[in-house]
Amino acid sequence: MKLKHLTGLSLLAPSVAFAAERPNIVLFIVDDMGWMDSAVAYGEQVYPNNLRHHTPNMVRLAEQGVMMTSAYVCPVSTPTRTSILSGMNAAHTRVTNWTSYVKDEYSDATGGGVSGGIGDTSADPLIRPDWNLNGMSPEPGIEGTFHATPFPQLLRDAGYFTIHVGKGHWAASGTPGASPYNMGFVVNVAGQVNGAPRSYYAEDHYGNLPGRWNYMAVQNLAAYYGTGTHLTEALTLEAIKTLDYPISHRQPFFLYMGHHGTHTPIQADERFAQKYRDAGMDEGQARYASMVEGVDKSLGDLMDYLEARGVAKNTVIIFLTDNGGNSENKNKGGIRHTHNKPLREGKGSCYEGGIRVPMLCSWSGKIAPNTRVNTPVIAEDLFPTILDIAGVDYEGKIVQDIDGQSLVNLLTKGSKLAAKAVKKGEVVGQKEQNLFVIPEEVSGINPLRPIVLHYPHKWKPYDLHDIDFLSCVRIGEWKLVYRMKTGALELYNLDDDIGEQTNVAVNNPDLTLQMAAVLAEKLRTWKADMPRINGTNKTAPLPDEL
Amino acid sequence: MKLKHLTGLSLLAPSVAFAAERPNIVLFIVDDMGWMDSAVAYGEQVYPNNLRHHTPNMVRLAEQGVMMTSAYVCPVSTPTRTSILSGMNAAHTRVTNWTSYVKDEYSDATGGGVSGGIGDTSADPLIRPDWNLNGMSPEPGIEGTFHATPFPQLLRDAGYFTIHVGKGHWAASGTPGASPYNMGFVVNVAGQVNGAPRSYYAEDHYGNLPGRWNYMAVQNLAAYYGTGTHLTEALTLEAIKTLDYPISHRQPFFLYMGHHGTHTPIQADERFAQKYRDAGMDEGQARYASMVEGVDKSLGDLMDYLEARGVAKNTVIIFLTDNGGNSENKNKGGIRHTHNKPLREGKGSCYEGGIRVPMLCSWSGKIAPNTRVNTPVIAEDLFPTILDIAGVDYEGKIVQDIDGQSLVNLLTKGSKLAAKAVKKGEVVGQKEQNLFVIPEEVSGINPLRPIVLHYPHKWKPYDLHDIDFLSCVRIGEWKLVYRMKTGALELYNLDDDIGEQTNVAVNNPDLTLQMAAVLAEKLRTWKADMPRINGTNKTAPLPDEL
Repeated sequence: MKLKHLTGLSLLAPSVAFAAERPNIVLFIVDDMGWMDSAVAYGEQVYPNNLRHHTPNMVRLAEQGVMMTSAYVCPVSTPTRTSILSGMNAAHTRVTNWTSYVKDEYSDATGGGVSGGIGDTSADPLIRPDWNLNGMSPEPGIEGTFHATPFPQLLRDAGYFTIHVGKGHWAASGTPGASPYNMGFVVNVAGQVNGAPRSYYAEDHYGNLPGRWNYMAVQNLAAYYGTGTHLTEALTLEAIKTLDYPISHRQPFFLYMGHHGTHTPIQADERFAQKYRDAGMDEGQARYASMVEGVDKSLGDLMDYLEARGVAKNTVIIFLTDNGGNSENKNKGGIRHTHNKPLREGKGSCYEGGIRVPMLCSWSGKIAPNTRVNTPVIAEDLFPTILDIAGVDYEGKIVQDIDGQSLVNLLTKGSKLAAKAVKKGEVVGQKEQNLFVIPEEVSGINPLRPIVLHYPHKWKPYDLHDIDFLSCVRIGEWKLVYRMKTGALELYNLDDDIGEQTNVAVNNPDLTLQMAAVLAEKLRTWKADMPRINGTNKTAPLPDEL
Repeated sequence: MKLKHLTGLSLLAPSVAFAAERPNIVLFIVDDMGWMDSAVAYGEQVYPNNLRHHTPNMVRLAEQGVMMTSAYVCPVSTPTRTSILSGMNAAHTRVTNWTSYVKDEYSDATGGGVSGGIGDTSADPLIRPDWNLNGMSPEPGIEGTFHATPFPQLLRDAGYFTIHVGKGHWAASGTPGASPYNMGFVVNVAGQVNGAPRSYYAEDHYGNLPGRWNYMAVQNLAAYYGTGTHLTEALTLEAIKTLDYPISHRQPFFLYMGHHGTHTPIQADERFAQKYRDAGMDEGQARYASMVEGVDKSLGDLMDYLEARGVAKNTVIIFLTDNGGNSENKNKGGIRHTHNKPLREGKGSCYEGGIRVPMLCSWSGKIAPNTRVNTPVIAEDLFPTILDIAGVDYEGKIVQDIDGQSLVNLLTKGSKLAAKAVKKGEVVGQKEQNLFVIPEEVSGINPLRPIVLHYPHKWKPYDLHDIDFLSCVRIGEWKLVYRMKTGALELYNLDDDIGEQTNVAVNNPDLTLQMAAVLAEKLRTWKADMPRINGTNKTAPLPDEL
């Protein structure tokens, strides 16, 4: 296959000629990789956790573009992915937990479901809400789904060649959203209902083995069975293959590169694992590190291919992950609940470790290289942002009311402003963050707009105090966490306390109540799901109803 | 989804405008459906078996185009499919049996394999050859494969939007040919290594169920699980969906519509089954009949869609099946070995029932409607024919030496000549066949060119006298069958004896030996595989070596 790509080089000139017209877009989404899992220092300093993983290509992308240091997504996968595709906040889509493989099956630990196991709910103070358990649907009237127009459909209608490779996980089987071919993609490889791969190994046929098969087996990869190709590499090779057509035909493309890596199962990418073992990491850590580096290699291979085909300059790359780093999985190695330090907690949680994720964006000539922007952004912003980049006007063409805002000015003018500030030497180490919060008159984004995440669910059959049934809102440097189980309100100042260690609610009762009101108002407006109280079966109170 | 198609109608005008330029091509391949399984009377008369199945759309296509009454393919699936993709005779590709799901596993009954079961070979007079058990490869140097350039790659390189839907089955997993994305297709739905579906039922998730899964589960259809959509219908809906992009973008398209129907398992398409039960068919027959009608409905739905989108006039439809009707499967109902009557035997056999199949072709303005052509044609002719239709010159662009010939003149000028003959009233019932054998100066096809099929294999763990280890050659009205087990040569005159009941070899010793020499010469030229003799391990003699 490599050979084929090289022959493609003859098409370089024409594709460049065309490239001037409309930008190609690559949305590179990594699974379960945390804010601290790469050498890219999203924090105000380089933390020890930044030194664990070798990620030269993420650094390379950061040097070519802008680092979004305050990028937020949902605590788990599907809500982030359906927010991205719909432009709606997860509390608004009412898809706040991941979709099961089978229709009408709740993934909540309370009330069981194939993903959560059958938890004994009798002891739980709260019971799961009747959320949209079947996910997103591009068609109306599908039970247990919300109906929205996916942005890839709008790109496709506007002449973009839309490609899906890897993890979909927007909807349960038996509903239209289960297939990328119903979500506006012209080409699909491997995308379906599974939220994780049965196996990353070609020797396991990626899970497609009699006796071992379950719904998480990865499809469309039979050509790699037994070839020793790690799933991350196989998906990368498939993605590169699919790019040849639009580049050769001078059509603008959108590539949704949805890696299963670095989600469980934690299975080593042996191209990279040994050096981490040699460096003294425990086996679980070494395996996880190799999976991160495998994804990093994929990013680099795609960047190399775009350069080789002469379209890199006209291709926007957006890199992010779908939730915080998983700090709950034993097999990942290391010490649990520390993987995202200085951030508190990880996947599943509304503390920063679960919702603040890596995000990078490059756009030659438009985005200033090697810059950082600290304005908070959120998953649903990608819908209007990507359509804005493509120059597609979606007014009147979509069925949903979107909550996100276009980040184009923030990414372009904002990054240039940040670059100037650095040049002027205004950067003085600590407290930089306020400097790189871009004024609204430049970015069109109010730096104080409320960033809301909402997880009215129990994640695992056992209780997770800092994960289950939490909501939060961030406004500027302030972060409010609402615990639905107890009704407790916690306030943190992220500038002083990014680790959310010191609850300052008691010192700031008015601000706490104001933020609780803002959070409640958003949830009320979106008709967000709240859990029910065990026994009374009444809906748990909103944060301003206490 | 239906709704979406209707909205597509707005694009009718432009697509028609474009359509004038290059013809679209639909290759509609049905699995295991026999020469006598439809209401289209390919024989010189309407036989009782023509009255079993309701196939209005096959009749509709026959009325719009030409009926090829002497179309030959291999006795089993993969050899036919790899001949079509490569333009080579199966004896030349050395893929003379179907490929297993797993690499390096023989499907022969002799020597076992997942498809054939482990037969006790000690008693067999012959042992399977070391054929290309891994199928066709678009890349060189893959063990157990033959390397060839698939024609979809040439179509794609020439600007065609190439779509694969349904059954692939060109190669074993772990080799490039396992994926349609490596065979020149831009889009793939469901195509992989399986030669049959695990289940046709959405309630079974088409085989994708824990505990029930095996390599025959059908991929990419999770959106239909539990919806009551028969596999034949699901693949049709997917095919129609994929056509929207090239039609809307005014790109010429090639659709490879590979139905799993009507292969085993024999599972009713309940849209149609009841009327066959009511008509008194046994349950197996009724199920099979409903599967045939399901495929017929698919053909009609595609024809309707092409008309609705305004591209029907500029779309060539080639309809055929991949081997003779299966007359060996008990669950199919009826009386075994009679399903293809008047033809002898069925799938697996080199008698007419196994190799002579339905073939229809329509091309508005170019092919005379409602005509029949009796010139023998064979699977490998489709490679040059399809490229000829598309106006693609493959000279110097392919790695293989092809054996097929373009049928374009036979289909166009030939059908027009046949139409004239009918008009002139020259058709007088019996013996028409010679009238509709088109002269070479019109068709470019020598009506007396040898048609060779070769099956040096044992199909099932039990002996099948009229199936195992046979080769044949047809020259005009004469047919020679060579039995490798016994060295026996049988001669039949197909004009007098289409059922191959009367072996006239003894009455025609010279012709018999001449045809044996022709068959042997072909097999020798192609370095065709012959089985080995159990005990001596010597290669079985060619038909002229006795």
